Amino acid sequence: MKNYCFGIDVGGTTVKMGLFKTDGQLLDKWEIPTRTEDGGKAILPDIAAYALAKLVEKNIAREEVAGIGIGVPGPISADGIVPHTANLGWGYKEVTKELSELTGIICRGGNDANVAALGEMWKGAAAGHRSGVMVTLGTGVGGGIIIDGRIIVGAGGAGGEIGHIHVDDNIPGLCGCGNQGCLEQVASANGVVRLAKWIRETDKQETVLDLDTMTAKDIWDAVKDGDAFACKVAERFGAYLGLALANIASTVDPEVFVIGGGMSKAGPVVLDYIKKYYIKYTFRTCRDAEFVLATLGNDAGIYGSAKLVIEE
Amino acid sequence: MKNYCFGIDVGGTTVKMGLFKTDGQLLDKWEIPTRTEDGGKAILPDIAAYALAKLVEKNIAREEVAGIGIGVPGPISADGIVPHTANLGWGYKEVTKELSELTGIICRGGNDANVAALGEMWKGAAAGHRSGVMVTLGTGVGGGIIIDGRIIVGAGGAGGEIGHIHVDDNIPGLCGCGNQGCLEQVASANGVVRLAKWIRETDKQETVLDLDTMTAKDIWDAVKDGDAFACKVAERFGAYLGLALANIASTVDPEVFVIGGGMSKAGPVVLDYIKKYYIKYTFRTCRDAEFVLATLGNDAGIYGSAKLVIEE
Repeated sequence: MKNYCFGIDVGGTTVKMGLFKTDGQLLDKWEIPTRTEDGGKAILPDIAAYALAKLVEKNIAREEVAGIGIGVPGPISADGIVPHTANLGWGYKEVTKELSELTGIICRGGNDANVAALGEMWKGAAAGHRSGVMVTLGTGVGGGIIIDGRIIVGAGGAGGEIGHIHVDDNIPGLCGCGNQGCLEQVASANGVVRLAKWIRETDKQETVLDLDTMTAKDIWDAVKDGDAFACKVAERFGAYLGLALANIASTVDPEVFVIGGGMSKAGPVVLDYIKKYYIKYTFRTCRDAEFVLATLGNDAGIYGSAKLVIEE
Repeated sequence: MKNYCFGIDVGGTTVKMGLFKTDGQLLDKWEIPTRTEDGGKAILPDIAAYALAKLVEKNIAREEVAGIGIGVPGPISADGIVPHTANLGWGYKEVTKELSELTGIICRGGNDANVAALGEMWKGAAAGHRSGVMVTLGTGVGGGIIIDGRIIVGAGGAGGEIGHIHVDDNIPGLCGCGNQGCLEQVASANGVVRLAKWIRETDKQETVLDLDTMTAKDIWDAVKDGDAFACKVAERFGAYLGLALANIASTVDPEVFVIGGGMSKAGPVVLDYIKKYYIKYTFRTCRDAEFVLATLGNDAGIYGSAKLVIEE
């Protein structure tokens, strides 16, 4: 019986690893450094060595392992090929094929934002739902679309790239993707700071915020304290993100939206501003979609990666 | 061997019916009137009677039929239940269950725009692709999202309701859905006429168009003749639809976009205006998505309905 599996979440600094029962029970988790030098050639051998060592430690035979799921930062095709991943040092890499050869265990791969969404759908905030959209509000805006329990990967791996939905022609500057007007520019943690400074150009209302040093957390703290300027920033944030999610609803009509990432730690007030505008813009049959905060935090990736190798 | 199936496309005036081989060969097609009186109670019995009569005519045993697929105008759940369909007279109706009881044949149902998309993916303009988005530019703007060969139905049947993507706060008037600023208001056949009149409020450039009587066809004919005002209308149309499709690409990243419906008969010039703005707004890995004109015309619905009952 194949009762065990691994969930691996590869980041630019550390690799998070989890050993699971196939019913979703997390038995053990740990981190190893991501060795990006020399084109990141040690990353997969390191993962393989630590996974196999964990099996020895736990007295589990390799034949009892259903598979290894691996999430990577960047696009990865349905057959586990990464074209290029700058922050791991990788060029073209057949990730799941190599890891499978190194371990003798079946491997499947996914994009990190997508597998985090799958994790929250499986064992996190959206458990019990069949379809959902996760939005990760961190340094950037990431996303994952899960329909009938499966990730929408996309023809070129761009499924769920909702940070690059175009929301406003007038947003100053260019997004990292090269386009202008992306959601990420106004709805990520960096984005709300940028948004506040942009609004400040024409709105000189008194505020407790120090416009030079403020962080996203400072802005949400000020919102909770009733700072009128900060509340205007939150309204604009909510309008942009609520609009983007309404338009996603008219496309895939999910049961639930999961809001995660560092900025979601500001709590339910973030949902309130998003929902206000979501309801304004969305098609009427989509108005009852649930909005929930992510619950798995940094473990979402290992849960979702593990789910990649577990059949329904 | 179950070598045959039916594809049924229920419209407000006529029901289109097709008898197919399960390899996709259309053997026969015909139409019957949609009898909407008395709550549309005759519609399903009429369909059943004509389907069974066709089997007798063709000397096909009921046991040789894999199933009946039926497309209906409006939302229908994954298990074939219609909550309400105004233009057929139906209230709550268990469509596939009733039709199955009437015929003794397995039935599956789908929304008409979604099954048209499935038809174009199967045997039409997008044959050979695994994922695609179809946009129907008719009286309204309909749509269907097909991923890995399956329709994205949505939690409440609103998958592919892309006519209700919000594109501009400033569009005058309300959409039929009750919202303001929907794509349908500026990109359907009626919508481009509305768009032309709206632009005319501030743009008095000479034009061959009669603003009181013009149709969408008149506008596209004028575009082809180089009429500068008509070309401005086409640019705005392209900007709205190109933006909406770019944002859909950042969500589901399809291989291909299929443009159909009455207005697509204006030809490749329609695609040119859409693609110009799609490429401006879309995430870079989505820029290579194909754009094609629908090829099945009014038969897309019967093809897609038939596909509902054919396993891969």
